[in-house]
Amino acid sequence: MQNFGLIGAAVMGSNLALNMASHGYSVAVYSRTAEHVRAFVEGPAKGKDIIGCYSLEELLANIEKPRRILMMIKAGAPVDMMIDKLLPMLDPGDILIDGGNSHFPDTIRRCKKVENAGFLYIGMGVSGGEEGALTGPSLMPGGSPAAWPYVKDILQTIAAHTASGEPCCDWIGEGGAGHFVKMVHNGIEYGDMELICEAYQLMRFMLGMTPDEISATLTEWNKGELDSYLIEITRDILAVKDEDGQPLVDKILDTAGQKGTGKWTAIAALDEGVPLTLIGEAVFARCLSAIKEERVAASKVLHGPAVKFTGDREAFLNAIRQALYASKIVSYAQGYALMRQAAKDYGWNLNYGGIALMWRGGCIIRSVFLGKIKDAFTVNPELTNLLLDPYFHEAVESRQDGWRKVCAEAIMNGIPVPAFASALSYFDGYRSERLPANVLQAQRDYFGAHTYERVDKPRGEFFHTNWTGKGGNIVASTYNA
Amino acid sequence: MQNFGLIGAAVMGSNLALNMASHGYSVAVYSRTAEHVRAFVEGPAKGKDIIGCYSLEELLANIEKPRRILMMIKAGAPVDMMIDKLLPMLDPGDILIDGGNSHFPDTIRRCKKVENAGFLYIGMGVSGGEEGALTGPSLMPGGSPAAWPYVKDILQTIAAHTASGEPCCDWIGEGGAGHFVKMVHNGIEYGDMELICEAYQLMRFMLGMTPDEISATLTEWNKGELDSYLIEITRDILAVKDEDGQPLVDKILDTAGQKGTGKWTAIAALDEGVPLTLIGEAVFARCLSAIKEERVAASKVLHGPAVKFTGDREAFLNAIRQALYASKIVSYAQGYALMRQAAKDYGWNLNYGGIALMWRGGCIIRSVFLGKIKDAFTVNPELTNLLLDPYFHEAVESRQDGWRKVCAEAIMNGIPVPAFASALSYFDGYRSERLPANVLQAQRDYFGAHTYERVDKPRGEFFHTNWTGKGGNIVASTYNA
Repeated sequence: MQNFGLIGAAVMGSNLALNMASHGYSVAVYSRTAEHVRAFVEGPAKGKDIIGCYSLEELLANIEKPRRILMMIKAGAPVDMMIDKLLPMLDPGDILIDGGNSHFPDTIRRCKKVENAGFLYIGMGVSGGEEGALTGPSLMPGGSPAAWPYVKDILQTIAAHTASGEPCCDWIGEGGAGHFVKMVHNGIEYGDMELICEAYQLMRFMLGMTPDEISATLTEWNKGELDSYLIEITRDILAVKDEDGQPLVDKILDTAGQKGTGKWTAIAALDEGVPLTLIGEAVFARCLSAIKEERVAASKVLHGPAVKFTGDREAFLNAIRQALYASKIVSYAQGYALMRQAAKDYGWNLNYGGIALMWRGGCIIRSVFLGKIKDAFTVNPELTNLLLDPYFHEAVESRQDGWRKVCAEAIMNGIPVPAFASALSYFDGYRSERLPANVLQAQRDYFGAHTYERVDKPRGEFFHTNWTGKGGNIVASTYNA
Repeated sequence: MQNFGLIGAAVMGSNLALNMASHGYSVAVYSRTAEHVRAFVEGPAKGKDIIGCYSLEELLANIEKPRRILMMIKAGAPVDMMIDKLLPMLDPGDILIDGGNSHFPDTIRRCKKVENAGFLYIGMGVSGGEEGALTGPSLMPGGSPAAWPYVKDILQTIAAHTASGEPCCDWIGEGGAGHFVKMVHNGIEYGDMELICEAYQLMRFMLGMTPDEISATLTEWNKGELDSYLIEITRDILAVKDEDGQPLVDKILDTAGQKGTGKWTAIAALDEGVPLTLIGEAVFARCLSAIKEERVAASKVLHGPAVKFTGDREAFLNAIRQALYASKIVSYAQGYALMRQAAKDYGWNLNYGGIALMWRGGCIIRSVFLGKIKDAFTVNPELTNLLLDPYFHEAVESRQDGWRKVCAEAIMNGIPVPAFASALSYFDGYRSERLPANVLQAQRDYFGAHTYERVDKPRGEFFHTNWTGKGGNIVASTYNA
């Protein structure tokens, strides 16, 4: 009997199976396409404790109980169909795991369904791509809590580990929590990538640096607080030359795709009512990049200021670094605020420090920075907002001069910095005791009798003014809602 | 036999019935709550050609055929339930109209269902609030095109009219087009309100103006290009005094609600892949305003620069006006781009100029500005983006100096201007032939083998680089997808 079952023999599934086998776990593999199973067991899996199965019955007959079955198949309807096929074949205690990029509401629904049928369910975010799957991914499992003890050892063994040996895998929470956290991870990835792009744009077109010079700068930055996988690969990318010896990056078309999880994250934030402005801008920035032909046409019609930089170049370069770090802190603060709100709404007990630790290795957003987030939640597990943690608070405040200068200079020079500026607006809004929403509430009361609350009265007491009668006609009413 | 049937006797429905009756149309009214019908026909409708019905059967028996039945009931499940009740009772050619705030995908679905049952359906956006319903709303009907000739006269008669006599009602398009356009209208309303709030915030806290002084400024602004209902009511609001003689606006709590259509608009933009950054920021600004307690706590911990304005006050006030107008143009450009994309995806034939005309009167965003949009689409019905229209192009370019200064000064002084700055980033991004998405595409190709296109090769040809091998290993492949 094999320790673990795998459904789907594409590259992600195959690599996870190889990863398990390399750690002494035996695996049985099934795929709808028999050929894929055969190619895998006779190819990369040859000589390892991985057996091929050619029917679901055969698969289930070859796994020890309670069965642990990982589905690595296309997200969407195929997962529902597979669950429907498997349910009549399972025994009590069996555990179904969905390791695909499922949308968290689907996972919430499926978890209930499988639990109601008497079994256990896990929706697991897997990050790190093909190579991560093979050598150590970041794993974010959530679903039926009773399933965790049965999968903990194997998942934590095959996961990435931090330098100090901690596994980048821990239990996330109930229902769809695992896929929700994976979704937020991807949204943050969108944000991190956009921030690096804006820093690049300023270095390239404001300071006129060459890709090699920018690469050298990133080499420096990667030694400090910005040390991260994405800075590292951008450093490498900018150093790569095309066949003609010119920087390859200059030959790449500036149109980015967007679909799926970045978008889902922004939508979840809108649904939860959490201001996730930076990731929202990052998603929209990709949309804007995609309409290249329209931009080219517009560039011939719409004119802005000529770029002219006159200040101290070293100081400005350092200010870009400050803007990048401060904006990054805001992005994670927003992402964590989204997770907090979702946890409240869905009844998840999220371990925020543990999540930072899980992202510390194996995944695209891995960075030294995440260690600081882990520390923040270790000190205060109930931290309302990352910006209030002493380290991050000091980090942002001490960088705000540079951050503000970069945004202001970019704006005066016509270089778009949607994420830098949006992060700064959030920082300034979040630390504002008073925002102009009093005017907005008055407008809503004026045209829609929406009522408003007052600063000098208890919350929950609502007032309406007869504005067209020019005041004096104020009605107080306490809503029981 | 009455000309028109109405289901729902709450204030919006009642006022629409009174509006119809005042224009010589007879109405039959039914409500689930008999008491509401009685109160209406014996109250406000007394002496008018409006009869009360106490069952759906009675309602249907008292309307001329083909029947025109307007549902003014709670959006959501009640509309589906009402349709289910009505379908077996209708005759061929009968027209069901949903005048509630339904979400457009529901309207798409319902339109198909009613058409498949052999009848006609209209989902109609109604704007203008209670007073508009009575005296002339903005009406945005879409659905079964065959229904339009039967409702055109009555709807265009009861709608608001522009100063030159054009009705603020025209056929929008197929399926859910009417409710989609109404949704975008509401999103734009969110944007307009946020922009006015940001202008207010700068006048109040950067220039230290009193509400009376700001009101006087808005009085001036309302005489020119910014002439609009929302500027007008804000002018009035800021002049209103509390019982103690102090400005009432200062007593209003700065926490705004958000749910429904503003959020739907942002989500639709994410789904369509259209950068709708300003409305997105406006929705998120409301979310941020809502966490007042958290902001108050944060204001004691997180410090920004002291506000210090040293320049020419008149010039800066004028720059705020420029920022407001330029940002507003961007917001409408984004909203129209969203409608264009949705029209493509859903197969709607939208009349963009007609939509501007419909918003010209009766609704919250009514303004002189919309006349300019109407003109732009009259000259060029295929206009890709409002910013490319000669009037708007000149309007934005000539205001950009002030716009940039306002954003830069606000940023240096720690006053949040999320919508002003986001609009400017969009303007600068939209007119950029090159955005830094080339770096982003390289990153995606590096960690996920996503491939990229090249500036020196035809679109549709995709390349992958072995980045870790430091270049030289470039594989070209043309995808057939």
